Amino acid sequence: MHIVNGKPVNPMLADQISVYDRGLLYGDGVFRTMRVSGGHILHWPRHYQKLRQDCTRLNITCPGAALLSEELQSLLQQHVNGIAKIIITRGQQITRGYRPTPDTVPTRILSIFPLYPSPETFYAQGIKLRVCQLRLAHQPQLAGIKHLNRLENVLAAAEWNDAEIAEGLMLDMADNVIEGTRSNLFAVRAGILYTPSLVNCGVAGIQRDRVIEWAAKHGLTCKIEPFGLTELLTADEIFLVNSLIGLWPVRELQTKTWSQFPVSRKIQEWLSHEDN
Amino acid sequence: MHIVNGKPVNPMLADQISVYDRGLLYGDGVFRTMRVSGGHILHWPRHYQKLRQDCTRLNITCPGAALLSEELQSLLQQHVNGIAKIIITRGQQITRGYRPTPDTVPTRILSIFPLYPSPETFYAQGIKLRVCQLRLAHQPQLAGIKHLNRLENVLAAAEWNDAEIAEGLMLDMADNVIEGTRSNLFAVRAGILYTPSLVNCGVAGIQRDRVIEWAAKHGLTCKIEPFGLTELLTADEIFLVNSLIGLWPVRELQTKTWSQFPVSRKIQEWLSHEDN
Repeated sequence: MHIVNGKPVNPMLADQISVYDRGLLYGDGVFRTMRVSGGHILHWPRHYQKLRQDCTRLNITCPGAALLSEELQSLLQQHVNGIAKIIITRGQQITRGYRPTPDTVPTRILSIFPLYPSPETFYAQGIKLRVCQLRLAHQPQLAGIKHLNRLENVLAAAEWNDAEIAEGLMLDMADNVIEGTRSNLFAVRAGILYTPSLVNCGVAGIQRDRVIEWAAKHGLTCKIEPFGLTELLTADEIFLVNSLIGLWPVRELQTKTWSQFPVSRKIQEWLSHEDN
Repeated sequence: MHIVNGKPVNPMLADQISVYDRGLLYGDGVFRTMRVSGGHILHWPRHYQKLRQDCTRLNITCPGAALLSEELQSLLQQHVNGIAKIIITRGQQITRGYRPTPDTVPTRILSIFPLYPSPETFYAQGIKLRVCQLRLAHQPQLAGIKHLNRLENVLAAAEWNDAEIAEGLMLDMADNVIEGTRSNLFAVRAGILYTPSLVNCGVAGIQRDRVIEWAAKHGLTCKIEPFGLTELLTADEIFLVNSLIGLWPVRELQTKTWSQFPVSRKIQEWLSHEDN
């Protein structure tokens, strides 16, 4: 028996989130946040592939692409230019305990939200970025996965509340630069692209993959390697990417400012037009 | 709009877990698992105090003790000798994003379960313990808190499925011994009690506090400090504690076995009888 906010709950109601869902109990699941444009999910094959990879790393059986696609269809008309979200949890488990039982059926939660576009100046002049105090922990078994254990991001995002600062930069315990609280990071120096290695922490987003592939295709060297804040501050350009914002150049970080973003602009243009 | 397992869900139904609950979305919450005996929760003041401390560290407003007590009363009669669980999440949040909004009202989820007692041999002869491959990450901002980001415990508990092995030992990235997947650990050597420091990772349970306090009260030195597996294996005794199992002596770990548990027995006896 269960009581939620003072009212009895039937945990077996299949059309609601169960209090037995391991997504709630342990953050035992993964998710994707996707841009919907013209009634279609942008880069759906990439999103599904990443969802499936993340499920595999946690030994969760990922629902089929066709099933998720079909269920998404009924939502997309609600906000033909919006945000779609998929959460896959390991599912409900009646027996207590951390160890998953093999017969657990994954729960799929699909949602659609309206899109509130970022201010145009974020794209035109770049954003102001701040350094978060929270340092990301090293956990190679979870690094790269967009899983539901996101307390580090929650604590980091709670560090500031100034609308002028669009994003927070997260470093790891070894003082390497890793990512934004909700975006991946790139730096440009002397015509070479750099993005942090995510083998110890961080979320590997699909826009990061797209930038890395674009660079390879267009003969721009992209190095995936650890680097620190000092190196970042001497970069020629910095930019952030994710599936909702696309690409934001960074105009200000600590005492450093940037106003020219030639490489970022090329990539921004490409990300917004190419289909793959 | 939301679809869960193919069916539309009204996220505003207040008597169900909402798909907007940050406990589900980010593991943004804390919990307690408590032993119910004779229709009462054992060590309720300690459990509530820890719940409140954990909430405070995440900047979640903990519901009052009187409210939770009152709501628990209606559950306790279901299993007068059972297991009660409290989950407090940061609450539902309609706007997207990691940053909590100040007006979010915490969700409280109270549950009761039947108790399946551990085999008597676990108490009488001790348990077999194995070393988990997963290494706990260092995150001082979350260390000690019983929060809902428990993927490390899930992955560690999934490493074995042999009913003969009662618990898994978790080390951290620096190869310090930390805890069991669902219990705290103590070692005895030359009449001195040792328990791992939990400043970088691990969950600080209330039974751990009780043992530490008992030791102080009875003139047994207890050192809270880091130590490794090699040191643990040369201990005179090892035991595990949590609120459901009480105390389990360890009889086997890797190639080492133990059969005498004089200090563990004294503490086991005390834990099972004293009220505070």
